[in-house]
Amino acid sequence: MTDKLIIFDTTLRDGEQSPGASMTKDEKLRIARQLERLRVDVIEAGFAASSNGDFEAVKSIADHIKDSTVCSLARANERDIERSAEALKGANSARIHTFIATSELHMEKKLRMTREQVLEQARMAVRLARKLCPDVEFSPEDGYRSDPDFLCRVIEAVIAEGARTINIPDTVGYAVPELYGNFIKTLRERVPNSDQAIWSVHCHNDLGMAVANSLAGVKIGGARQVECTINGLGERAGNCSLEEIVMAVKTRRDYFGLEVGIDTTQIVPASRMVSQTTGFVVQPNKAVVGANAFAHASGIHQDGVLKARDTYEIMRAEDVGWAANKIVLGKLSGRNAFKQRLDDLGIDLESEGELNAAFAKFKELADRKSEIFDEDILALVSDESVTPMREHYGLVSLAQHSETGERPHARVVFTVGGKEYSTQADGNGPVDASLKAIESHVKSGAELQLYSVNAITSGSTESQGEVTVRLQHGGRVVNGVGSDPDIVVASAKAYLSALTKLHSKSERVAAQGWPV
Amino acid sequence: MTDKLIIFDTTLRDGEQSPGASMTKDEKLRIARQLERLRVDVIEAGFAASSNGDFEAVKSIADHIKDSTVCSLARANERDIERSAEALKGANSARIHTFIATSELHMEKKLRMTREQVLEQARMAVRLARKLCPDVEFSPEDGYRSDPDFLCRVIEAVIAEGARTINIPDTVGYAVPELYGNFIKTLRERVPNSDQAIWSVHCHNDLGMAVANSLAGVKIGGARQVECTINGLGERAGNCSLEEIVMAVKTRRDYFGLEVGIDTTQIVPASRMVSQTTGFVVQPNKAVVGANAFAHASGIHQDGVLKARDTYEIMRAEDVGWAANKIVLGKLSGRNAFKQRLDDLGIDLESEGELNAAFAKFKELADRKSEIFDEDILALVSDESVTPMREHYGLVSLAQHSETGERPHARVVFTVGGKEYSTQADGNGPVDASLKAIESHVKSGAELQLYSVNAITSGSTESQGEVTVRLQHGGRVVNGVGSDPDIVVASAKAYLSALTKLHSKSERVAAQGWPV
Repeated sequence: MTDKLIIFDTTLRDGEQSPGASMTKDEKLRIARQLERLRVDVIEAGFAASSNGDFEAVKSIADHIKDSTVCSLARANERDIERSAEALKGANSARIHTFIATSELHMEKKLRMTREQVLEQARMAVRLARKLCPDVEFSPEDGYRSDPDFLCRVIEAVIAEGARTINIPDTVGYAVPELYGNFIKTLRERVPNSDQAIWSVHCHNDLGMAVANSLAGVKIGGARQVECTINGLGERAGNCSLEEIVMAVKTRRDYFGLEVGIDTTQIVPASRMVSQTTGFVVQPNKAVVGANAFAHASGIHQDGVLKARDTYEIMRAEDVGWAANKIVLGKLSGRNAFKQRLDDLGIDLESEGELNAAFAKFKELADRKSEIFDEDILALVSDESVTPMREHYGLVSLAQHSETGERPHARVVFTVGGKEYSTQADGNGPVDASLKAIESHVKSGAELQLYSVNAITSGSTESQGEVTVRLQHGGRVVNGVGSDPDIVVASAKAYLSALTKLHSKSERVAAQGWPV
Repeated sequence: MTDKLIIFDTTLRDGEQSPGASMTKDEKLRIARQLERLRVDVIEAGFAASSNGDFEAVKSIADHIKDSTVCSLARANERDIERSAEALKGANSARIHTFIATSELHMEKKLRMTREQVLEQARMAVRLARKLCPDVEFSPEDGYRSDPDFLCRVIEAVIAEGARTINIPDTVGYAVPELYGNFIKTLRERVPNSDQAIWSVHCHNDLGMAVANSLAGVKIGGARQVECTINGLGERAGNCSLEEIVMAVKTRRDYFGLEVGIDTTQIVPASRMVSQTTGFVVQPNKAVVGANAFAHASGIHQDGVLKARDTYEIMRAEDVGWAANKIVLGKLSGRNAFKQRLDDLGIDLESEGELNAAFAKFKELADRKSEIFDEDILALVSDESVTPMREHYGLVSLAQHSETGERPHARVVFTVGGKEYSTQADGNGPVDASLKAIESHVKSGAELQLYSVNAITSGSTESQGEVTVRLQHGGRVVNGVGSDPDIVVASAKAYLSALTKLHSKSERVAAQGWPV
């Protein structure tokens, strides 16, 4: 058994499946590039057959990423597998990940198929995938709740067909470490050709044990691949956190005795990028990447910590990239310095026009904010108004006023498909008034499910506010993100960005059809 | 061995120790009442000797709580133990929890004491505590990194002195489940009088395994008490989450075979109360209490879930209290209905004057917001302006204006120690302008570390915004929380509330002196 633990990141597939976390193609590519910098072994880029948008995203990632294997999920049917192979054509190293449910509950209630039908389908799918791609992974969905006898038959059959990785998902987050580890161990012992595949774990966090379960699958079960996401992003309580798995294996090398290829200094930048892109906040007491995770990084320099850091710290904040929050640019920085910083951050704008638009935004921001941090730059290019031509809805200008005892009022000028509109409205507060002004013309009928603001940088009231707006309409949920030093302007931008997402992504396959 | 698992909640002690999570006496009492409704077995109410404020908070909780045991932390010295006993005098059921570090690193670098001195100190402390209180718990701080031989000597000695609970903290979050479980097991086997105490686990989440480690301590080690906090609040990556421990033991009763006395339907209300009070957000993908933890509770009603809920859900949202978000009051609700709802929510305002002030706030809110939810009521009474006489800083009125291309401006009228001041300022945004206006008079010199906003209720732009402001000054960190339908007003309230906390809580013992 090798002593290398393969890190398989599924932020862009299982993570994106989380209601409200859907991303544009550009956003997915930007995150894929950060995952490559992080040196993850496999990037699950999406589910190519689920929509044209997802196909394009997988294709774009396959075309651009060089160091990591790029993977697409596919149900166990011809069309899904062929679409995946098509999207992955440009990849340096490609993998098709096909799956079918094997638990009685899922086979009966969701698939309405017999055991023999499922077995045959799995076999056919892997056979076809292997014809199109040398690297094939197979997952029995809801594997942990499946009958072990049947599961062994399925796994033996797909390994015989050429599956190189066998992934055992705890789809509903029901496992406990001891039992899950022993489950994998038993499967590996019972399946005759088990040594011809690398075994993998995929755990959900419903009972708060995804990391411990995954590691038990590794330690007790002998798995050598962990599927995980940045910030533990994912449906319901999310997936196993990449940052926790990696730091546990590194910090407790004495116990696990395994190597991981991750560049841990890229962890915090990756966490911030995913959080800023999806609008999913990271709670302060989140392990490794939470604002409080390291006492001395949260601005507290108390006696105990300074006296002997290791009395309370088992990891160093620098090792996971907490040093990144430094002033990088200011008002006097030129276009070259700006472009250099974009390169350092791995941001690759597609055209000169986009670079010019981003630089103009930067100068405008630098006029209002004396210290520009990496986070500001990330927010700036995440801000969809950098690429206004592609945006269906865009903000032009906003004026608002509120005063105790009076009804807040806002006037908003914005574009719809390139045409300008000016509207105004009253509201409970200036944000409410601004959104109502937009809605008075757009009449989207969308329901506001979540509204949150975080300061992008700390340490001064000069921070930009980053607003996340989550809208639901017609069974779909989207997050829009907007940033500006003026929180009301940021809110209007976020609302328009969410409306754009609602407008553009309507053809997607319903998420519930494909969790693993 | 009993099959009852004792739930020991330390939200108000180890949780509150988290930078920025400090609470007022009233806030702590309100949370203690919710913990009592949740039916936790033991409430660690604070660290009585750390400050007069904490003494008063422990005393107030001891005087009011009837069903749960009330506990105070105490270092292993006479003064701490006597202060704890004094604060706990009024309790129906009291516990003193005394601790001293036993790891070489902590003894040498923090305590500067020899093994024999530590052993003697521990013995003396438990002896004294037992004289003052029949129920005594002992913790060897950094126990998991201590030499087992020495640890066994200390534990045997303190049990001989009458300690009834022995708690083994993984102070720095270094453990993995298998090793931690076996560590507890070995200690229990080696300590000759181990059966005269209940064994307890206390895990931190630095590697994301606090819950799994605690449960391994229970399953492998035979511990029968788990120390935990609501939302996993706590220093760095926080403590073991109460909600995850409880739901894991309940959901996997087949494996653990243990009873817990918790009323799980009070979990989500407790989570919200702690989050609103401390300003520590709960990330959407947090297990059990995150907004996305239950697919159908997040507003998504897709085929898969509706077809067969148990295909993807192992717990029911109703069982952990997710039903609570309903309209409870409106504009026409009278004072009696309001008071009744306060009673139902367990909010006990101290005087008629406070009730009147809260009711006036409620009517004012109901004029602006047609649907009033439980969260609004909680925010309303959390809002420190309900009790303006006790507040050093209070908001009177605010007017602000912002317009694209112009510099935002705010005018704020507020009180300092009862005296009114009117100030104005420009800023990057209306929030920045408002805080600068306040600061122009107050000149606190505090550094803004965090600014965040969450909508209190979802489903409409009519929501109130709840703003959290974290200030640091002179080595201390405080969070202020303010809510209002107008986000700028809420921000000013939050800032003034944080200033009040900075003003009033200056005598506290440095937090780093006392983690367990």
